[in-house]
Amino acid sequence: MTAEDSFGNPIDPVAGFARGTIITSATEEGLRLRNAQRIAAERVQAKGPESIAIFTGNQRNYPVHADDLTTLCEEWVGPGLFAPALRATGLAHLGGLGSDDVAVFNRTSAAIIATIVALVRDETVVSVVPAGGPSHASVGHGARLAGVEVLNVPVVEDWAEAIQTRRPKLVLVTTVTSSLERMDDADIRRVTALARELGAVTLLDEAYGARLRTALHGGTPSLQLGADLVVTNCDKAGLSGPRAGLLAGRPDLVARVSATGAGFGMEARAPIAAGALRSLEGYSPELLREEARAGQELAGALSKHYRDGVVRNSDLGPMIHEDDVLRDVLDRAGAPANEAAVVPCEASSALGVLLLRDHGILTVNTHGQPGARVSLRLKPTADAIHRVGGVTSVVEAVLSASKELAAVVTDRAAVAELVLGGNP
Amino acid sequence: MTAEDSFGNPIDPVAGFARGTIITSATEEGLRLRNAQRIAAERVQAKGPESIAIFTGNQRNYPVHADDLTTLCEEWVGPGLFAPALRATGLAHLGGLGSDDVAVFNRTSAAIIATIVALVRDETVVSVVPAGGPSHASVGHGARLAGVEVLNVPVVEDWAEAIQTRRPKLVLVTTVTSSLERMDDADIRRVTALARELGAVTLLDEAYGARLRTALHGGTPSLQLGADLVVTNCDKAGLSGPRAGLLAGRPDLVARVSATGAGFGMEARAPIAAGALRSLEGYSPELLREEARAGQELAGALSKHYRDGVVRNSDLGPMIHEDDVLRDVLDRAGAPANEAAVVPCEASSALGVLLLRDHGILTVNTHGQPGARVSLRLKPTADAIHRVGGVTSVVEAVLSASKELAAVVTDRAAVAELVLGGNP
Repeated sequence: MTAEDSFGNPIDPVAGFARGTIITSATEEGLRLRNAQRIAAERVQAKGPESIAIFTGNQRNYPVHADDLTTLCEEWVGPGLFAPALRATGLAHLGGLGSDDVAVFNRTSAAIIATIVALVRDETVVSVVPAGGPSHASVGHGARLAGVEVLNVPVVEDWAEAIQTRRPKLVLVTTVTSSLERMDDADIRRVTALARELGAVTLLDEAYGARLRTALHGGTPSLQLGADLVVTNCDKAGLSGPRAGLLAGRPDLVARVSATGAGFGMEARAPIAAGALRSLEGYSPELLREEARAGQELAGALSKHYRDGVVRNSDLGPMIHEDDVLRDVLDRAGAPANEAAVVPCEASSALGVLLLRDHGILTVNTHGQPGARVSLRLKPTADAIHRVGGVTSVVEAVLSASKELAAVVTDRAAVAELVLGGNP
Repeated sequence: MTAEDSFGNPIDPVAGFARGTIITSATEEGLRLRNAQRIAAERVQAKGPESIAIFTGNQRNYPVHADDLTTLCEEWVGPGLFAPALRATGLAHLGGLGSDDVAVFNRTSAAIIATIVALVRDETVVSVVPAGGPSHASVGHGARLAGVEVLNVPVVEDWAEAIQTRRPKLVLVTTVTSSLERMDDADIRRVTALARELGAVTLLDEAYGARLRTALHGGTPSLQLGADLVVTNCDKAGLSGPRAGLLAGRPDLVARVSATGAGFGMEARAPIAAGALRSLEGYSPELLREEARAGQELAGALSKHYRDGVVRNSDLGPMIHEDDVLRDVLDRAGAPANEAAVVPCEASSALGVLLLRDHGILTVNTHGQPGARVSLRLKPTADAIHRVGGVTSVVEAVLSASKELAAVVTDRAAVAELVLGGNP
């Protein structure tokens, strides 16, 4: 049985949302991103860099020092020069022991895929996830490339039975999802303990969790939760970027996964690994807590303009499910659901384009990679709210963009033009 | 029947060389690289950056401007800012048309793997290679991940029959291998023409070829050889680095392959794509010709010290097959072949370590990624020969390192210590 969204559109099981006639595949998601990059560039050229405010929940700055360019960023010699500092800083960040090791990948997705392909042969990957939250799309990609199945089990269901019966080589635990559903430390420990007892390797996907659990919820450092491997993201939740995946844990496993990843061209280039080091060095839990407070304030203000339950309040800011985005816009248009010319993901993308083009609000709805989720998410970074003119201005921008989208939501061509621009 | 090297060791069909008891898998190749990075870093710390000379045939500098760090290298907005210049410069470099498009990957390997996985379902990939030269290891990796076979056909054999009978969706042409075996332009055109006639997409692996064919052999620009897609490397043959894969050609295919690659975390980060742009902008065919002349001179001088035929002269410098490296070292030790404690790839790695540690000569024998070839290759970049003290000093370094290796070649533990250092 194919799952459907609340409009009756069939959900693409890989993407986790319904595709339409504009966003038919990952290829159009890529074109959507390129169109958005063009729109952002035009805005910067016309109004300057301060005219863009990042609401994706993560900065992607590049904090290397000018001195690093000819030393650490040179790839034959540089990685040897920064290896000791990277290891020390990475392990301190994740609460690792002296015997643990680290490696930097081009993305967290790359590290997850390389782990699955390196460690699994024919066995099902058991993936334990927070209640209500799926694992990242890269888990499915990795399993397909390895030619194995993934069994996603919410932590509130019988994950123990899944591990006992499937006897996986690899148990993957998503501690915090990209929508910020979160697993308790006690649950994480129970999963890693059983997996270890039964001889499985455990990988914690701590892309957000490494800092969100610890800085906002007083959680235990990542490498002290009983897992063999942990991966986090150098541009999420209090880290400044660049985007990169930091893998850490048992040195023999880090070496195996790194070798597999290097064969696939997934390792971080020296300039990125050097940037990851600078990002880790600059980590500030207080800045993360400040961003979380700003997100809460924005969620509170936005929710007054929507029916109860529509605006969900995550740790880092408000979210509106893509179905609710389309429903809201149709309501504003006075149009019944069957007159929608688009599916929910296309509506939330178009809304993202209007927020970006007319208000400088940059979201994952325009700038996510293929595979990113499609709910409207506003996670303000550093001075993002200030750049737009305050919380009220951000709320007004969302409402204004929603009205503008309502005017074209029954016109497929107009929405396609917004989402894909001049692209085919 | 398993192929064997000239010592009777079975050749690993994936790696293309025989594995031993020190380098048993790609994991040890990764440890070999980390050990070498540590050795290079120690030398730089003791004797300064000028004490290392790059003989890998490619620079891996990072030529972004200080101004780029907060603009082009910021990943939300930067890629939109440099996209027009990247496209124009990339297409000019490859002889593309206005209708072609470009995308930058984290490595050429990543672009090749993403192409295979994106475009192939169940069909065999037909891979046409120069006489005597295999395709890159990434072709095999991509096919395994896609769950399909690769048929490698030398261009001197009946590749046309292979294409006609297999009816591939994808024909891959390696124009110049990493050992610099080269295919004629006329042959490349014949392959792309037949593939096109039979409806297959063609990808040219022009990692080296884009510049080696054109600047040294008067060849046709890459995108004018009838292929749908071309990939080249931003740190090879006259480009300064960073390492990155530039994919170019039909825009619909570039979009598909890019979307697949992005799902796997294989796309170039903004700082790398910005570096690739600067690398392409700085391309100098004359510098490449100068490096080629230096390589020829070195090959001539080195060959006087070896039996006829042992030193092969490539476009960019001398090469000695790994079997000949081990045989030479055994001869110097006065030891028969059956007393060798190591296989040829371990001997050439150990020789690379001695060249690096004692003479500052950095080669792929120490610094290649897992999967790299293992013959001794000396391809001097820019001022590499000058840094060592001239051609005679480089030759003396090779002879001196060979003597030193001869003293331990029957001692497995000593060779392991050289190759892997303190690693397990």
